[in-house]
Amino acid sequence: MRLRNLKNKEEILIESKSLILSPEKMKGKWAEHFGNDHPIHLEIGMGKGDFIIENAKRYPDINFIGVEKYDSVIARAVQKLPTDLPNLVLVRANAELVTDFFDREIDLIYLNFSDPWPKKRHAMRRLSSPLFLERYAHIFKDINRIVQKTDNQILFESSLISYVDASYKIEELSLDLHQSEIENNIMTEYEKKFIGQAIYYVSVKK
Amino acid sequence: MRLRNLKNKEEILIESKSLILSPEKMKGKWAEHFGNDHPIHLEIGMGKGDFIIENAKRYPDINFIGVEKYDSVIARAVQKLPTDLPNLVLVRANAELVTDFFDREIDLIYLNFSDPWPKKRHAMRRLSSPLFLERYAHIFKDINRIVQKTDNQILFESSLISYVDASYKIEELSLDLHQSEIENNIMTEYEKKFIGQAIYYVSVKK
Repeated sequence: MRLRNLKNKEEILIESKSLILSPEKMKGKWAEHFGNDHPIHLEIGMGKGDFIIENAKRYPDINFIGVEKYDSVIARAVQKLPTDLPNLVLVRANAELVTDFFDREIDLIYLNFSDPWPKKRHAMRRLSSPLFLERYAHIFKDINRIVQKTDNQILFESSLISYVDASYKIEELSLDLHQSEIENNIMTEYEKKFIGQAIYYVSVKK
Repeated sequence: MRLRNLKNKEEILIESKSLILSPEKMKGKWAEHFGNDHPIHLEIGMGKGDFIIENAKRYPDINFIGVEKYDSVIARAVQKLPTDLPNLVLVRANAELVTDFFDREIDLIYLNFSDPWPKKRHAMRRLSSPLFLERYAHIFKDINRIVQKTDNQILFESSLISYVDASYKIEELSLDLHQSEIENNIMTEYEKKFIGQAIYYVSVKK
């Protein structure tokens, strides 16, 4: 995602209490940070945060962590953050390092409109690749659960194959989410632009 | 599928040597019938036969069996049959009874543009429902392998879930077969009319 560079992004990032700049220090201590033992849902590649902020408002009994690697993008999410949302933190980090930040603490991972890396030689960079699923296996608490949305056919096809190869079962599947019976969909900012176009959706569990 | 009633359909059916009207008598004896131990590929709901006839021509070292329940439809397939195609037989039968016709003899099942039975209360009638997968488990020789094509979204979504629940792995998957890298696709007569529209394709194995 491209974004205009925000002049004051560093100030924004440093000032926010909801932003974690050194997530490796939190490993194994997230429940302590949130002050409760509620489930923790992680969005990897949260973009400007519409999805996770709305989730955190709607589900106060779930803790949410949004990971985003780009400063400029996460700064936008920080700007949108309501002041009183104790069940949400944002983490500026690269998803490749998730095992450095979490130790069997995560209940669910959201992958929304992830970079499709459509070339075969880049397939392992997809956030649903076997390589990433192996990393996620170390951060899930008990049940492994991933919920994915994308408009990219190549990414969706390869994701389904990866999940099944890794012995996930399919809980819900739609090849046209907005026309489906799946309820309570919270749209990302990217998704809002694509109304009318088919969005692929899958929820998998093992 | 609707079809004009063929006046001479009964004569056509009775005269054809390639048509098996009492498949239950063949149970366990298909290799004997074909006179070799080549793999046997079964198409359930073969319609007018374009797909399976072309397959039989192209792959002489595979035996093909096409099952179709409607007299009028199978009569059309019989009319199209080349005289010398010893590796193909047609069976007029209801798919619900496949376990009466085959005894661990099948290597691969094709499900092409099956009736989607889109209403939830009819889901078990879909040829990829858990009920049918259980039947197929009794007729596969060794490896269970199903190759499916459809243009129906509901059928495709539910099929994928059924396969995965039954512990199949996905070999190949495309949400737009005709634009994919999958080669050597043989079109059904139904599919030929739908060029330009996305065809869902999956090959699964266990």
